[in-house]
Amino acid sequence: MHYDLYYWTGLQGRGEFVRLALEDAAADYTDVARVEGDAAMNAFLEGQHEGARPFAPPFLKAGRLVIAQVAGILHYLGPHLGLVPQAESRRLQALQLQMTITDLVAEVHDTHHPIASALYYEDQKTEARRRAEDLRSNRLPKFLGYFEDVLEQGGGRHALGQHSYVDLSLFQVMSGLEYMFPKRMATLAPTLPLLQALRARIAQRPNIAAYLASERRVAFNTRGLFRHYPELDAA
Amino acid sequence: MHYDLYYWTGLQGRGEFVRLALEDAAADYTDVARVEGDAAMNAFLEGQHEGARPFAPPFLKAGRLVIAQVAGILHYLGPHLGLVPQAESRRLQALQLQMTITDLVAEVHDTHHPIASALYYEDQKTEARRRAEDLRSNRLPKFLGYFEDVLEQGGGRHALGQHSYVDLSLFQVMSGLEYMFPKRMATLAPTLPLLQALRARIAQRPNIAAYLASERRVAFNTRGLFRHYPELDAA
Repeated sequence: MHYDLYYWTGLQGRGEFVRLALEDAAADYTDVARVEGDAAMNAFLEGQHEGARPFAPPFLKAGRLVIAQVAGILHYLGPHLGLVPQAESRRLQALQLQMTITDLVAEVHDTHHPIASALYYEDQKTEARRRAEDLRSNRLPKFLGYFEDVLEQGGGRHALGQHSYVDLSLFQVMSGLEYMFPKRMATLAPTLPLLQALRARIAQRPNIAAYLASERRVAFNTRGLFRHYPELDAA
Repeated sequence: MHYDLYYWTGLQGRGEFVRLALEDAAADYTDVARVEGDAAMNAFLEGQHEGARPFAPPFLKAGRLVIAQVAGILHYLGPHLGLVPQAESRRLQALQLQMTITDLVAEVHDTHHPIASALYYEDQKTEARRRAEDLRSNRLPKFLGYFEDVLEQGGGRHALGQHSYVDLSLFQVMSGLEYMFPKRMATLAPTLPLLQALRARIAQRPNIAAYLASERRVAFNTRGLFRHYPELDAA
């Protein structure tokens, strides 16, 4: 099966969670907007294609299926790419964990955009400072502590007791947060040994290492989801 | 199958999306915290039960399965309760739509809590006013316009061409928003005829009508997700 991934050019964003799964599994896929430009997504977003209409990128075209929402895309891809356990109960568990990552990602986004996505960061900096303080102090320890516990319950090395798309997404979360909040993540590090080891192991998987070294991996930047604004970070 | 639903007492919140599905299908379920108190959830949240560990309520216990995240719970319940089409592609479409409702719900929550969930509304009122203006002007028309289009593509009466848990959730979204933003929803009403008709039809389904008239339906209030603060509303 050939897959077409649709996502904004120039940033990792939410599309990166899907890209990591496709790359890890060496799937046959096209990153369409990077070939044809962002406008290639419009016909889908305007409902001119058959299949489910996406609210926003990323979305995946697989044959006649169009699937949007990161956790939905990964729920679909998981069995096809061998990136989720086969039992239905474990697939549901993976879905739940991925949706919790979605929640964290939304909070990370709203940290630099606490008032409106449509406004520039510069127009909501005061509010962003206040929100970042709460994220650093309360929300990051709560979310990351939860995923650390999940790894422990999964035997220490995997969220689901075996390699899955959830592990790949946790790699991305840790990488993004370490770019965004280097000071805060350094003080949290001693409390997150399993997440840190997972991040290092995933980076060394051959297909992931090749991807990270390629030009297909866009560098973290301040147009993406995880943004490094030094004034929002603190130990 | 008997289901145990776990969610905070005293508010509708995210649990209500699950409750509406269980009520519509006349499922055999216990709303556990309402019987035993909120502390009944602790053992699950602390990872002392077998099964997947929830990050937060609501979560559902179905036999040995524990499932968290509204969209995950409804994805599981859908086929058991006859509340989703059988084809896998349609189940995925329902999941995607429900996740988009989750996104809207998170934005609605953050409108009265733009800085921190842990702070009182009164401590973030200034920021809430700014965020509410963006939600009213940009985000509500975008989200609700999308769901109006989805209904149109589904034949006018249903998001998925037949009754599903997505329709029940859209009923809840419309009901909550009309409580929260009566002025804004009145000006949007002419642009959302299908959503308004859906809301009216769902309210008249016998099991839903009985539920809404019962004491099991907690009234909307300012502890829940949809909160009416007059200063956040405007036409």
